[in-house]
Amino acid sequence: MTIDIKQLLAARADQIETVLKSLLSSDPLDHETARPARLLEAMRYASLGGGKRLRPLLVLEVAALFGRDLSETDKGPAIAGSALEFIHCYSLVHDDLPAMDDDDLRRGQPTVHKAFDEATAILAGDALLTLAFDVIAEDVVHADAAVRLRLSRDLARASGIGGMAGGQMLDLESENRDRTETEIRTLQAMKTGALIRYACRAGAILANAPEEDVARMTRFGEIIGLAFQLADDLLDVEGSAEDVGKATGKDAAAGKATLVGLLGVPQTRAELAQLMRDARELLAPYGARAEALSAIAAYVAERKS
Amino acid sequence: MTIDIKQLLAARADQIETVLKSLLSSDPLDHETARPARLLEAMRYASLGGGKRLRPLLVLEVAALFGRDLSETDKGPAIAGSALEFIHCYSLVHDDLPAMDDDDLRRGQPTVHKAFDEATAILAGDALLTLAFDVIAEDVVHADAAVRLRLSRDLARASGIGGMAGGQMLDLESENRDRTETEIRTLQAMKTGALIRYACRAGAILANAPEEDVARMTRFGEIIGLAFQLADDLLDVEGSAEDVGKATGKDAAAGKATLVGLLGVPQTRAELAQLMRDARELLAPYGARAEALSAIAAYVAERKS
Repeated sequence: MTIDIKQLLAARADQIETVLKSLLSSDPLDHETARPARLLEAMRYASLGGGKRLRPLLVLEVAALFGRDLSETDKGPAIAGSALEFIHCYSLVHDDLPAMDDDDLRRGQPTVHKAFDEATAILAGDALLTLAFDVIAEDVVHADAAVRLRLSRDLARASGIGGMAGGQMLDLESENRDRTETEIRTLQAMKTGALIRYACRAGAILANAPEEDVARMTRFGEIIGLAFQLADDLLDVEGSAEDVGKATGKDAAAGKATLVGLLGVPQTRAELAQLMRDARELLAPYGARAEALSAIAAYVAERKS
Repeated sequence: MTIDIKQLLAARADQIETVLKSLLSSDPLDHETARPARLLEAMRYASLGGGKRLRPLLVLEVAALFGRDLSETDKGPAIAGSALEFIHCYSLVHDDLPAMDDDDLRRGQPTVHKAFDEATAILAGDALLTLAFDVIAEDVVHADAAVRLRLSRDLARASGIGGMAGGQMLDLESENRDRTETEIRTLQAMKTGALIRYACRAGAILANAPEEDVARMTRFGEIIGLAFQLADDLLDVEGSAEDVGKATGKDAAAGKATLVGLLGVPQTRAELAQLMRDARELLAPYGARAEALSAIAAYVAERKS
């Protein structure tokens, strides 16, 4: 493999970081009255200076696969990826709240409600979620307003009751309760899967890919989403807190059923390997052009943190 | 005045309620995996069976003023109004949380975090906020996707850091702190004003009103928003808890500076009267066709609950 995935991830993360920063500037936009400093500070704290930026990375690389230019002059995919990243960041802020997962640390730093306060954390999450739907509508995202609207609506469905937010609800309900394998798979497809699926789907839509390819990339996103979750479950069981940057063994401690808990480590590893074969097969028609996506898939499955 | 405002309000509220209900059905939509029952129940609890529906009412009546049909066959304005109502309802759920205003009652009923629990209330708010951006994108809202996208983006800006969420942040920060009149006006224009402004603006956009009329209706919305807030402040000072359906005197108890606190009751009443004159002037060019909007303006200024 000629692509240095770490270098690629780092370069793309820089690109995304620059766009995220510019979107969180202190100047009010048209139809905004003012951007209160403390709220903006909390939104920046929640969004900047960290994270793997996996979701925007997928948006960018899928868009590139279908011919969208990723040069400095076309910020569209990075803007769309940033909208998605704002959704992801808001969900972390709210999930960390005392009434939810009650986490004090995130990426080794105090969580937003610890660094600020609970009310500010709730509002920062709300404002990041809302900002995503402002950002995804930006002209540079796609020349056709109908395409931007489709991206916006798909984003709402991936993030809402039928996607991420619904999955978090199921996750909270699964504490100290037995869940069937099907239930856990549904929960995870919603909680973590929906946004990753959207990332790949949105990349294809952004680049005017034929519907057949949009469907293929959607399927690719579902596979990456599940692989991401299985790798995460394995890290929670096998990783050290130092490597992972957050407490491990948390799922078991919270009495949360996971696939690895149900299937065991060897079977989970086997499923992960199968998912990687499926991913490669989905990318096969694109040949060498899909090298970066292929590398990202492998990275997701094999990551150590 | 030939329009019975109470009858109009009630009829429109029924119309909105029907649409809200249908949007909160238990069937997953395209790209949704499932709608978890408890989360949906909390979203319905937060949105159905109560409220004056002032914001959707304004959307409907402004759209009607510019020729949009409000018959059963054109559900577009009611759908757009419902999206806005979901934003309003989510904001109430989050504002009521213990970390925010810590309210146990809303419209005489237990607040969502009391009827369910805090985690569910946070998620129900998140999911309602997200659903708004799904709903505003519905085809029936407007035939032109570019117009729907404009409505979606304007809604994001009215609701986010530069609008409602930012205003709530300023409101929290104003507890036990002196505020200048300008600061309070900015806070209120954001916290309660932005959505009411949007309601009137969106109604005009929905009906393809000329930009000059969109601007005029935006200004009308600003006036109604301020009148609504002044009337609310007066109710908090003068109303009885029984009439208002929530605790009164709360602003003073929380050490929150209000305009009525700063200006006094007589001057607040005088400003309210001036706002009504301004509103009538803005509606004058439309003659009798603006009768309903004129009645709503009067209702907002004179309401007792």
